[in-house]
Amino acid sequence: MACTTCLDSIGRPKKMRKEKDTMGELEVPDDRLYGAQTVRSVMNFPIGGIEERMPYPVIVAFGILKKAAAKVNVEFGLDKKVSEAIQQACDDVISGKLYREGHFPLVIWQTGSGTQSNMNTNEVIANRAIQILGGKLGSKDPVHPNDHVNKSQSSNDTYPTAMHISVAMELRDRLMPGLCALRDTLQAKSKEFDKIIKIGRTHLMDAVPLTLGQEFSGYAAQLTYGIERIVSTLPRLHYLALGGTAVGTGLNTRIGFAEKCAAEIASLTGIPFETAPNKFESLACHDAMVEVSGALNTIACSLMKIGNDIRLLASGPRCGLGELMLPENEPGSSIMPGKVNPTQCEALTMIAAQVMGNHVACTIGGSNGHFELNVFKPMMVANVLRSIRLIGDGCQAFNKNCAVGIQANEQMINKIMQESLMLVTALNPHIGYDKAALIAKTAHKEGSTLKATAIKLNILTAEQFDQYVRPEEMLGPK
Amino acid sequence: MACTTCLDSIGRPKKMRKEKDTMGELEVPDDRLYGAQTVRSVMNFPIGGIEERMPYPVIVAFGILKKAAAKVNVEFGLDKKVSEAIQQACDDVISGKLYREGHFPLVIWQTGSGTQSNMNTNEVIANRAIQILGGKLGSKDPVHPNDHVNKSQSSNDTYPTAMHISVAMELRDRLMPGLCALRDTLQAKSKEFDKIIKIGRTHLMDAVPLTLGQEFSGYAAQLTYGIERIVSTLPRLHYLALGGTAVGTGLNTRIGFAEKCAAEIASLTGIPFETAPNKFESLACHDAMVEVSGALNTIACSLMKIGNDIRLLASGPRCGLGELMLPENEPGSSIMPGKVNPTQCEALTMIAAQVMGNHVACTIGGSNGHFELNVFKPMMVANVLRSIRLIGDGCQAFNKNCAVGIQANEQMINKIMQESLMLVTALNPHIGYDKAALIAKTAHKEGSTLKATAIKLNILTAEQFDQYVRPEEMLGPK
Amino acid sequence: MACTTCLDSIGRPKKMRKEKDTMGELEVPDDRLYGAQTVRSVMNFPIGGIEERMPYPVIVAFGILKKAAAKVNVEFGLDKKVSEAIQQACDDVISGKLYREGHFPLVIWQTGSGTQSNMNTNEVIANRAIQILGGKLGSKDPVHPNDHVNKSQSSNDTYPTAMHISVAMELRDRLMPGLCALRDTLQAKSKEFDKIIKIGRTHLMDAVPLTLGQEFSGYAAQLTYGIERIVSTLPRLHYLALGGTAVGTGLNTRIGFAEKCAAEIASLTGIPFETAPNKFESLACHDAMVEVSGALNTIACSLMKIGNDIRLLASGPRCGLGELMLPENEPGSSIMPGKVNPTQCEALTMIAAQVMGNHVACTIGGSNGHFELNVFKPMMVANVLRSIRLIGDGCQAFNKNCAVGIQANEQMINKIMQESLMLVTALNPHIGYDKAALIAKTAHKEGSTLKATAIKLNILTAEQFDQYVRPEEMLGPK
Amino acid sequence: MACTTCLDSIGRPKKMRKEKDTMGELEVPDDRLYGAQTVRSVMNFPIGGIEERMPYPVIVAFGILKKAAAKVNVEFGLDKKVSEAIQQACDDVISGKLYREGHFPLVIWQTGSGTQSNMNTNEVIANRAIQILGGKLGSKDPVHPNDHVNKSQSSNDTYPTAMHISVAMELRDRLMPGLCALRDTLQAKSKEFDKIIKIGRTHLMDAVPLTLGQEFSGYAAQLTYGIERIVSTLPRLHYLALGGTAVGTGLNTRIGFAEKCAAEIASLTGIPFETAPNKFESLACHDAMVEVSGALNTIACSLMKIGNDIRLLASGPRCGLGELMLPENEPGSSIMPGKVNPTQCEALTMIAAQVMGNHVACTIGGSNGHFELNVFKPMMVANVLRSIRLIGDGCQAFNKNCAVGIQANEQMINKIMQESLMLVTALNPHIGYDKAALIAKTAHKEGSTLKATAIKLNILTAEQFDQYVRPEEMLGPK
Repeated sequence: MACTTCLDSIGRPKKMRKEKDTMGELEVPDDRLYGAQTVRSVMNFPIGGIEERMPYPVIVAFGILKKAAAKVNVEFGLDKKVSEAIQQACDDVISGKLYREGHFPLVIWQTGSGTQSNMNTNEVIANRAIQILGGKLGSKDPVHPNDHVNKSQSSNDTYPTAMHISVAMELRDRLMPGLCALRDTLQAKSKEFDKIIKIGRTHLMDAVPLTLGQEFSGYAAQLTYGIERIVSTLPRLHYLALGGTAVGTGLNTRIGFAEKCAAEIASLTGIPFETAPNKFESLACHDAMVEVSGALNTIACSLMKIGNDIRLLASGPRCGLGELMLPENEPGSSIMPGKVNPTQCEALTMIAAQVMGNHVACTIGGSNGHFELNVFKPMMVANVLRSIRLIGDGCQAFNKNCAVGIQANEQMINKIMQESLMLVTALNPHIGYDKAALIAKTAHKEGSTLKATAIKLNILTAEQFDQYVRPEEMLGPK
Repeated sequence: MACTTCLDSIGRPKKMRKEKDTMGELEVPDDRLYGAQTVRSVMNFPIGGIEERMPYPVIVAFGILKKAAAKVNVEFGLDKKVSEAIQQACDDVISGKLYREGHFPLVIWQTGSGTQSNMNTNEVIANRAIQILGGKLGSKDPVHPNDHVNKSQSSNDTYPTAMHISVAMELRDRLMPGLCALRDTLQAKSKEFDKIIKIGRTHLMDAVPLTLGQEFSGYAAQLTYGIERIVSTLPRLHYLALGGTAVGTGLNTRIGFAEKCAAEIASLTGIPFETAPNKFESLACHDAMVEVSGALNTIACSLMKIGNDIRLLASGPRCGLGELMLPENEPGSSIMPGKVNPTQCEALTMIAAQVMGNHVACTIGGSNGHFELNVFKPMMVANVLRSIRLIGDGCQAFNKNCAVGIQANEQMINKIMQESLMLVTALNPHIGYDKAALIAKTAHKEGSTLKATAIKLNILTAEQFDQYVRPEEMLGPK
Repeated sequence: MACTTCLDSIGRPKKMRKEKDTMGELEVPDDRLYGAQTVRSVMNFPIGGIEERMPYPVIVAFGILKKAAAKVNVEFGLDKKVSEAIQQACDDVISGKLYREGHFPLVIWQTGSGTQSNMNTNEVIANRAIQILGGKLGSKDPVHPNDHVNKSQSSNDTYPTAMHISVAMELRDRLMPGLCALRDTLQAKSKEFDKIIKIGRTHLMDAVPLTLGQEFSGYAAQLTYGIERIVSTLPRLHYLALGGTAVGTGLNTRIGFAEKCAAEIASLTGIPFETAPNKFESLACHDAMVEVSGALNTIACSLMKIGNDIRLLASGPRCGLGELMLPENEPGSSIMPGKVNPTQCEALTMIAAQVMGNHVACTIGGSNGHFELNVFKPMMVANVLRSIRLIGDGCQAFNKNCAVGIQANEQMINKIMQESLMLVTALNPHIGYDKAALIAKTAHKEGSTLKATAIKLNILTAEQFDQYVRPEEMLGPK
Repeated sequence: MACTTCLDSIGRPKKMRKEKDTMGELEVPDDRLYGAQTVRSVMNFPIGGIEERMPYPVIVAFGILKKAAAKVNVEFGLDKKVSEAIQQACDDVISGKLYREGHFPLVIWQTGSGTQSNMNTNEVIANRAIQILGGKLGSKDPVHPNDHVNKSQSSNDTYPTAMHISVAMELRDRLMPGLCALRDTLQAKSKEFDKIIKIGRTHLMDAVPLTLGQEFSGYAAQLTYGIERIVSTLPRLHYLALGGTAVGTGLNTRIGFAEKCAAEIASLTGIPFETAPNKFESLACHDAMVEVSGALNTIACSLMKIGNDIRLLASGPRCGLGELMLPENEPGSSIMPGKVNPTQCEALTMIAAQVMGNHVACTIGGSNGHFELNVFKPMMVANVLRSIRLIGDGCQAFNKNCAVGIQANEQMINKIMQESLMLVTALNPHIGYDKAALIAKTAHKEGSTLKATAIKLNILTAEQFDQYVRPEEMLGPK
């Protein structure tokens, strides 16, 4: 791959400027707002490529927290003009403008505290603010990335703050819409199908009947609980580390800084963030990430179940169960014409498996902190954000391209149910378990119907059978 | 291994009686209360051995739910005398008496619905009730395992009910005491150590100071949140499947049965169980198990962090960090006399790893349900219960044999901190980041102290240094 | 639970003797051969209970390695009579006699190096050898647990040696027989079914035909490769740590000791063990365990696929696919008479999920070693051994109670295939993809057959259709 | 996000052409070579974004296999001119040219068979070949994506073939170079450090000495075995599914096609691929992916151990172990000047955690195949390829920016070792375990040296002590 930071889009060397940090001087492409520390990270961590970039929501969250800190810092001595320029620069981070323009090139695989992404943000915001104030890029004047943009902060408290902000926002803005849309559709389908009586299946074997609506109500309930599961993790996700600085003590901050920043971030995002009651916990471990990841993992189990059931129920068209008909979105096979596959189920279940794997990565990272700092931060948040995005997008695609278009094959559903031997269960209260079993086993052996068998065995009359075995009366308690 | 069901303890053939089920007749040891279906399971699933037995809390939970059902069923036509005998038999299950006497020989690796354990319970309770009423073992008279003990129930709703009851009870009775005890100790240690100033470590490297009490407060906070995490899963764990019978519709039950049973179980256990709003969900998936398992997984991450930190801080005695001293519980090594190892940390962190693995097993089982029934039930609950027990017992052992006896090596802690270069951070607000960095790097290079270096570089006077760099003033915001 | 080490089977206090170690004196039940260090471990680690005991194959492996060391140590100064008594005592460990008598009470959750199980073994063997030589239990004379039984050894090299021996033996003696038996059955079924043409299913949808024998050949191939996978891990599993002593240097051993012991162990077990070329690796990490666990994890995937396929193919009897018939082993449901469930598939797939979870636990333990010693040893080996046993036993049960009895429902298989639209694929080479697709889609829409549709659309004559579409000619390349 | 397929880089609508497939007509940007089926996938699966694209090595592998098939198909009736155009088009896929130009926009989250990526490839190659032959884009003339490019193939056999080719190539070209480079460096360091005697640490506690070279030899051995582990998976990875077509039977191929294609692919890649002996296995499951993933998982454990050890040994500079000095690559902290962190270790250990998570995702996908097709293909291969790339790149970065520059802090190493009490072990053979323990414990209690204590306790003379306790003689067997 060509060096995208030092060559332009047609391969000519870019114009470069010098930037320096505490370790010395480096060349930076002049059309980039980042500085020396970002360049060092690019050089030291050529791992992965563009797919491995620090997730975009983390950058947005950094913009939000830097803006809040700049605003609050005015109360603690930051020059108002500098603060306003920083805040304006932050808006260009929050809007995604500066991300799209390529000022955030770092990958996940960097320092485990996310320090380099914090510095990347500080450098970009400082230079953007310098631009706004008419200064010279890289001069650190009148806006210094550390002394001003990072004032009262440390990577160790800003990065976990950005983790919590980005995850909370993505849960609200990406996961919930997808999850709710799919849940609503499944609930609507449950109503739509509430008169369709079908065979139940347990152990994959024929069982007693239920309605297709009842079956879908289970799927809807799974997602409703999934939503509750996410909600139940939020109290701990809403705690922000900001104000803990390097080790959690809040050294070099001022009393009130943490609380005011949290309030400001809450106001900017509309999410009830608050300052973490224990900042040592906030820096040294990320159990809150593992917890959210666990809720996502549970939802993945739900989606795997739902996706599997739907494709099995839609299997066929002629050699499967054939109870459902899925929308045809694309030609399914390059060799088998006419075949249309449950591709949305496949994408969804692949996503479920991925989320379970992401959860393990997050768990392992979460368990491996040392002393005052967990240094698996970028990997952890990247996995949680990826899971959120995949579930959110996946539910939307599945909902729109599959769930809303699911149709019941009523003819097939009824035909299958009528063939079942398991309606025999309706006889239990009337003739006892053992006799009912005898009828069922005999009919099975002889390939005959329950009714004919019951009569032949002299256990029931035809009238009794018809009176006792009524699928529509087998759908609930008496 | 000898056949423990047909040979007595000294290897002589036991006296046998005949029992039969719908598939035929079988011999059962006459000193056992179970019947044909249990024997079939023993024969068909010779997998693992005694270590793989259905967990004891599941059996107790079955006793509770069978008792509740027997009591409620009187309202729905069950003979009162039969009900009372069943309830009395259930008490012998609940107390553990019948488990200890060997009437529950089945392993986890059986039918995935737990049917065979439900039948085992039905058989044992029926026979025990028959004994109480003076009847003949195996006669199913006057108490029938299906018609009476299992009345209005199915394996498909009783087993998941037993899953929820057993997990909720074990969370309360085994996990919480261990977790709270350890949390309380860590909190007490946090207070005890609140004046001991020590070096902080981030990236495993020297950082700014904090108190040992602050460090321990982070551990205590992790466990406090862990407790909250468990609590936040309970609403969905308190939903009981009972009343759903075979596929969730409640076929063959009576209106009110489900609610009354849940109330009775709540009363028997003191836990606010309620009947599940959606029984299809309750049978077809076990997201609630995956959710609880996720909370346990998060706690495992906390315990791994705490156990690791403590053993690292106690490393030495002479060649490690040496900040903590752990109680000496046993000789540590067969070849290195005098060495005492952090064995409690080792057991605890091994447990943490196991819980993470159990969580994956539970997740995979939870994702693999089909249609109206998930058939990974025994495996799922066995993993959750094992995780609960290991964490509960592990925390108790770690608490008693390690945490309460942790002592700070104050002399070493102070010595280490005084050598640190990182107190330089205190200079940031006074001389700026770049100059502070220069002092630290110079001192590092020259093996000298910060103070001497600051003076030599003409950045600060001795008085200024002493005024600015005061560890005791670096422990919080100003 | 009552204290099983100090009360006898009817609850009376046992006769006790005093034993001492470097930390002091303790009471030991006089009918037990272990000593003070074992008792300390029992007291300090009351975690889990009997289900959590150190796996039996580890104890056997300890017996083997202690015997080998005792024999080799004669060349390095161990008194011959003492050596012989130790070897005889080891035979009682290897045979399982001393395990069954209760001399190995320790659980997995102890020191992470397995030191206490090494000491337990040393104590038991020393006391048993003392018995043999007519000495007094606990006197350490004439056989000392450290100086004689543990001579030239450390827990740090013996425990990993026992890990490798026990896993290698269990792979050979428990896993392979189960895996091979099932593979052989599947291969035999593949032959048995080689003339039965059935519909293929991809994406769960109807596809082109294959024989049932071909389908089963895939399962057999999976297990054949699984066996190869195990074999490919053996070179590294056959490396033994013995001779590394405390940190891998082999301090306190003699040149040749390691090699001779490995040769002796190879001779005792019939497995080509050799001394590890790098003992630092052998103690500090257990990548070989993670590797074996990974092979077991792959086999678990195979078994999950096979178990799932078989139960899906056997689903029904009337509302599923119904292509296979499984043996009826037990009544399946307490409420639905006549229903027989694929319980062996359920046990097998639950086992698969457990093995995948065990693998994660093993992986996490394997990744967490520090410096010269990994201290997740007992947890790691316990998971690998459990996976081996579950797969081995599970395959045997599944083979015997399910696989050998699988029957093809030829009538149903043929009926389903004839209804399929996918035989259209046979037309691709004759009329091209697009026209073939048109026929299939039209037939699908109109609920008609391929043949009628092809004729109606004037694409083919009846003769052409019959000539082109012949399932028996669609089973391989031309 | 703007629609990148229908707007140009400055947001203007692109010129569009019509393409059609069996489901109808669609607009395709005229500067793109793909067709209708690719566009449908883009529309139906808006999941993730650019980070989620089908991995590049899969596309290259498709280029290789399509080239091989085109060449072989000449023998089976494909027009030579068409074949040559296809092969030339394939070269533009293999070189990456067409990928970089944006003709492969699909994401992982599509149909689980990878059908859409197969069709994407067919469309792009067909259109590129049409360009070469001077035809009209989208005309399917003279090169048809299905009839010519996909001739004798199905998505179901091409995609798994691309999986095996891409993984085998990336193992060779990306993983092995990184792994070998790091192994070689660690081996070189082992030699460089072979005279530096240091304290060993077991249970994190002081133990007997070894050389730093010996310690590093363990790391090198881990990676050497890791390389062997990869190699041992190759036999099954080298099996190619091509020739199995839709369900594994090879319908619509010709005898010899499979073998010739495999030979051609082997020749194009220099890797000894061969046609899979059982094609049913090749399509229906991907145990070979799970197996490779398991080997990568084991390597991840090794890297976690090595990364952890190195950062712990380098901890400090003044308050940690301080035995190693790592290269300074960047300023470590925004608030703590002068602090340089083990960031390469952090990236490496984060990668290790990610690989373990990827492995679980791959495992779950691998366990969930149904009948003739596993439909978790893109997810599985994406995880394996990502793990390969992260380990490969991560090892290179770690090697270059950390490992090669590791220096021993000999002064500190020696100082620490001399303070240790554990040299007492050298006395075991001379005075026995119990007396040696007494000396060590006394010295520990009194804060004194071993020598002084041994003399004071009248166990040894000074001369004896000096004669017995010589670290340089404690480094191996006698």
